[in-house]
Amino acid sequence: MIKLADISTMPPPHLDEDETRKKTKALVEKLGKLQHKLLASQTHAVLVIFQGMDGSGKDGAVKNVFQDCHPNGLSVHAFKKPTEEEFAHDFLWRVHKHVPPKGMIHIFNRSHYEDVLIQRVHKWIDEKRVDQRIEAINAFEELLAFDNNTLVLKFYLHLSYEQQALELQERIDDREKNWKYNAGDWKERELWPEYMRCYQDVLNRSRIPWTVVPVDKRWYRDFVVATTLVNALEELNLEFPEIQEK
Amino acid sequence: MIKLADISTMPPPHLDEDETRKKTKALVEKLGKLQHKLLASQTHAVLVIFQGMDGSGKDGAVKNVFQDCHPNGLSVHAFKKPTEEEFAHDFLWRVHKHVPPKGMIHIFNRSHYEDVLIQRVHKWIDEKRVDQRIEAINAFEELLAFDNNTLVLKFYLHLSYEQQALELQERIDDREKNWKYNAGDWKERELWPEYMRCYQDVLNRSRIPWTVVPVDKRWYRDFVVATTLVNALEELNLEFPEIQEK
Repeated sequence: MIKLADISTMPPPHLDEDETRKKTKALVEKLGKLQHKLLASQTHAVLVIFQGMDGSGKDGAVKNVFQDCHPNGLSVHAFKKPTEEEFAHDFLWRVHKHVPPKGMIHIFNRSHYEDVLIQRVHKWIDEKRVDQRIEAINAFEELLAFDNNTLVLKFYLHLSYEQQALELQERIDDREKNWKYNAGDWKERELWPEYMRCYQDVLNRSRIPWTVVPVDKRWYRDFVVATTLVNALEELNLEFPEIQEK
Repeated sequence: MIKLADISTMPPPHLDEDETRKKTKALVEKLGKLQHKLLASQTHAVLVIFQGMDGSGKDGAVKNVFQDCHPNGLSVHAFKKPTEEEFAHDFLWRVHKHVPPKGMIHIFNRSHYEDVLIQRVHKWIDEKRVDQRIEAINAFEELLAFDNNTLVLKFYLHLSYEQQALELQERIDDREKNWKYNAGDWKERELWPEYMRCYQDVLNRSRIPWTVVPVDKRWYRDFVVATTLVNALEELNLEFPEIQEK
C-alpha cells in the first residue's frame, strides 16, 4: 500500500545532479527514437497521465521529457473546468474522445482523476459516487489496455507542502509566470490534507498502477518520468515495419 | 434465463390487431409528450438501443414509435462498419461520443453490441476478448446510468428464420426497398444458429436488461416498443420546470 507521507518528495540523498541531468538527456533522446517506432508500427497506443497539486510541475514535465518526440505522434490535452455540454454527460465522455489511437502518444495534463479528487475534496459528489467512479475509471483504463493495446502510464507528481508555497509565490514574483497565478490557489492549498487523503486513496485503488514521482527538484522529476517511459516503451519490443510490396 | 428458442416471434394468439394499433397510436402520442418534458427538465438522458438480425425491422421501429417526438430532442445514430480511425481505437470509443446528454433521447440503430455479435460469429475476436468486451459494455452502460441519469433501454427485435427470408426477398421484389438489398445478407443468414447463440448469451449476460420484442408482425413490434418506452419514461416522474425568476 502506498503511504504518501512516507515517500520523500526529494531525490535520494547523494544523487549527483549533473550526472542525473546527463542521463535524463540520453533518456529523452531514446524516448524520441521509441516514439518514432511507435508511430511507424501502429500496433500500440500510449496514454500518459499527469496528476499533481498546483505547482507540482506538470507543464514542465510535459515540456522537458517529450522534447525529442515528433509532434506528428504526440498530442497533449489539458482538462479544465468542464463546459456546459460536458457537464450534461457522464464524467468520462469528454475524456474518452481524447484517448490515443494506435501509433500515438497522448498526454493528459490533469485527467478524469480530477472527478474523484477536486470533486471529492469539495464534496460536490458523495462517497457512493466516488466509489462508482473509481470502479468506472478502472474499467475504462482496462478497456483501453485490452481492446486497443494501450499502455496507460500514470504519474503522480509528489510535491511537499513547503515547496508548493515557493512555487505559488514564484508565480507572483516572476513576471513570466504571472499568467499562471490564480489567487484561488492559496484557498485550495488550505485543503492540502484532504487532497493528500484523496490522492492516496486513488493511488491505492487503481488497478493500473501509478508512478509516484518526487518533484521538489525538477531535474529529478524529469529523470524519473523519462526512465519510466523509456522502460515501458522498450518492453513493447517495437519494430519498424518492413515494406510490404516491392 | 432467456431462451430465444422458447420465445415466440409472433403476437399472442387472439390479440386484436386493430385494437392494438389504436393503443399504439395513443402510446406514440404519449411518448411525444413525455419527451417534451424530458427535454424541458434536463434531468435525465435516454439511450434506446435496437439490435436484431437483418430484416428484423429496426428502421421501421425507429420511424413508427418516435413519430410524435420533437426532432430537437431526438437523435438517431446508425453504426456501420468502423472507419479506419475508429478501428485504431477501442470498440467503445466511437459509441461513447454519441451517448445522450441530459434532456435528449438518442437512438442507436445497431450499437456496440455488434462488437460481440458479428465479430464473435465470424471469430474475428477470440472468446477471451468477448468476455472482456461484455464486461466493458456492462461497466459502460452502468456509467451512463449512475453518472448521468441515463435510462438505457435495449430492444432485441426477435425475428423468425422463416420471416427473415420473406423480408429479404421483399428487398428484391419491392422497387422502393431495393436500396436495402445486399447479396451478402443471404450468406450471413447461413450463420443464423450461431447468431442466435451469441444473441442469447449477450441477452443473458447484460446487467441492464433487454426487452425481447416479437417482430414477425410489425404492428405488434411497435406496440411492445412503445409500451416499454412509455412505462419507463413515466417512472422518471418528469415535470416541466417552473420559471426561476419573475
